[in-house]
Amino acid sequence: MYLAGIDLGGTAIKAGLVDENLSLVGKTSVPTGVGRSYQEIIADMAQAVIRTARENGIGLDEIKSVGIGIPGVSSKGVVIAVHNVYWFDVPLEAEMKKHLNVPVHIDNDATVAAVYEYHLGALAGCNVGVLLTLGTGLGGGIIINGKPFSGAHGLGSELGHMPIVQNGVQCTCGNKGCLEAYVSAPALIRRGRQCVIDRPESMLHHVTDGDYTKVTTKMIIDSAREGDYISLSIVDEYVGKLAMGICAIENMLDPDVIAIGGGVSGAGEFLLNKIAKASEGLGIFENQKYADIRLAVSGNDAGIIGAAMLGMS
Amino acid sequence: MYLAGIDLGGTAIKAGLVDENLSLVGKTSVPTGVGRSYQEIIADMAQAVIRTARENGIGLDEIKSVGIGIPGVSSKGVVIAVHNVYWFDVPLEAEMKKHLNVPVHIDNDATVAAVYEYHLGALAGCNVGVLLTLGTGLGGGIIINGKPFSGAHGLGSELGHMPIVQNGVQCTCGNKGCLEAYVSAPALIRRGRQCVIDRPESMLHHVTDGDYTKVTTKMIIDSAREGDYISLSIVDEYVGKLAMGICAIENMLDPDVIAIGGGVSGAGEFLLNKIAKASEGLGIFENQKYADIRLAVSGNDAGIIGAAMLGMS
Repeated sequence: MYLAGIDLGGTAIKAGLVDENLSLVGKTSVPTGVGRSYQEIIADMAQAVIRTARENGIGLDEIKSVGIGIPGVSSKGVVIAVHNVYWFDVPLEAEMKKHLNVPVHIDNDATVAAVYEYHLGALAGCNVGVLLTLGTGLGGGIIINGKPFSGAHGLGSELGHMPIVQNGVQCTCGNKGCLEAYVSAPALIRRGRQCVIDRPESMLHHVTDGDYTKVTTKMIIDSAREGDYISLSIVDEYVGKLAMGICAIENMLDPDVIAIGGGVSGAGEFLLNKIAKASEGLGIFENQKYADIRLAVSGNDAGIIGAAMLGMS
Repeated sequence: MYLAGIDLGGTAIKAGLVDENLSLVGKTSVPTGVGRSYQEIIADMAQAVIRTARENGIGLDEIKSVGIGIPGVSSKGVVIAVHNVYWFDVPLEAEMKKHLNVPVHIDNDATVAAVYEYHLGALAGCNVGVLLTLGTGLGGGIIINGKPFSGAHGLGSELGHMPIVQNGVQCTCGNKGCLEAYVSAPALIRRGRQCVIDRPESMLHHVTDGDYTKVTTKMIIDSAREGDYISLSIVDEYVGKLAMGICAIENMLDPDVIAIGGGVSGAGEFLLNKIAKASEGLGIFENQKYADIRLAVSGNDAGIIGAAMLGMS
């Protein structure tokens, strides 16, 4: 038997089939075609699975389930919101079953990434595991007793939306002072741009030729790594805010492991070491073992494979 | 069969037996006698159960398990710390089994209170339920799928220790800016005392005859209820900070119900309504159902009965 996985993004639909050893046996990618009806998009999602099966000599009766990772939130098979595909209240499970009549599992893409890490990556063997994805937003995935946890109504594990500053920076979610508003890639870039504008002596000003629009998170982190004290202070401030989130996670969820993934985590050990150091001693009980903080493993097809793995739980 | 429950406090050991209908059939209270060896205290805890059984005509072979609620934290049967009984690294489970050779379950008293609420109170029927106890500290209990959740190492559900202000007020836990440092009863009283000292025209100054040492949380809330604007501002500030915690809980754990218990919750509907209002719209997805916020039911023997209920999970 095979598990189908679909990674829905704003640009592409990626689908694949995973065998019993959790190996990806084939995959297909088609454009999402945002703007079309949800029925058309979902038909293409199903077709991508069907085509992958056909190309790999797999019968549709050998597909046990379809798992779907969405960059948004769902509850009871209905997508509540996927902003970058303009989906609101879309009956994804019911519509998918018109094409593939097998159990359909839907979860947030950060949760799907956590499921992948649980089976094949940094959260392997955890009773309680947490994945933080540092990217455009701050995504969160929670594993409890081997299963993805998203709360009573499927609205939880939004770890980027714990408030860390009362009446703080406006967050894209509508609230103010969310962790995400301080540790998203755009927040980091905003600080870097300000530095280019305000500090002509800085390395960031130098590497961008004074053009603040060129700032990337990688530039900021590379400059910090090379010892530029202004970039270092930006990174340290970023890490300090992230440590507030890690402190909350340790004292509330007490995970075995907190895995750090997402684009910003490409900064690797340099950033990881700073995060680990800033998080030392934040668990409130002395001399106790708290979470290991590790880099996520992820990989190119983690979105497809993790989605397929939703069928295992 | 009967479930034994023990509520260990700094002053008294309370023990009782609960029948299959979750009714308390008998109870005993003895002084804790802080300062004695842990062996002596645990012997008294066991004796309190044995005496309760004897007084109610129950044989020791009819006791299925012993549940113990402690005002501290434990992991794998060992008490890590109960500060007010001076217990550190006490092998409670092993020592208790010398007296009563049945399964022994140990959990934090706020978690025990949440277990009680789950079976007989405000968290009944919840898939995910959270209890906040507003008292000397801010205790937290989490129920997931009918079972108490304390994390991978038993150190979690410390909901009072999420940071809400970076480098904020010193908390008793050693960290700074914890939610508890702003919403504990002592924090509330501190604000009330300052008001008595600084604002001779205030109702609080009047009801304490200007003696700041007389301030109680009840006085502050009663003055606010009667419309004293300074007391109202103290309560509103308190509620605003608490709402930051509720926001984090909703977006991370997405519970069915958040129950409010503990001494300060004695302020009843007046405080509950303020908390519910301040928490409106803090879940990040629009038009979705988030947690009901309710008063906890608790009751005099909740500590004993909840501890006994640990044997059900």
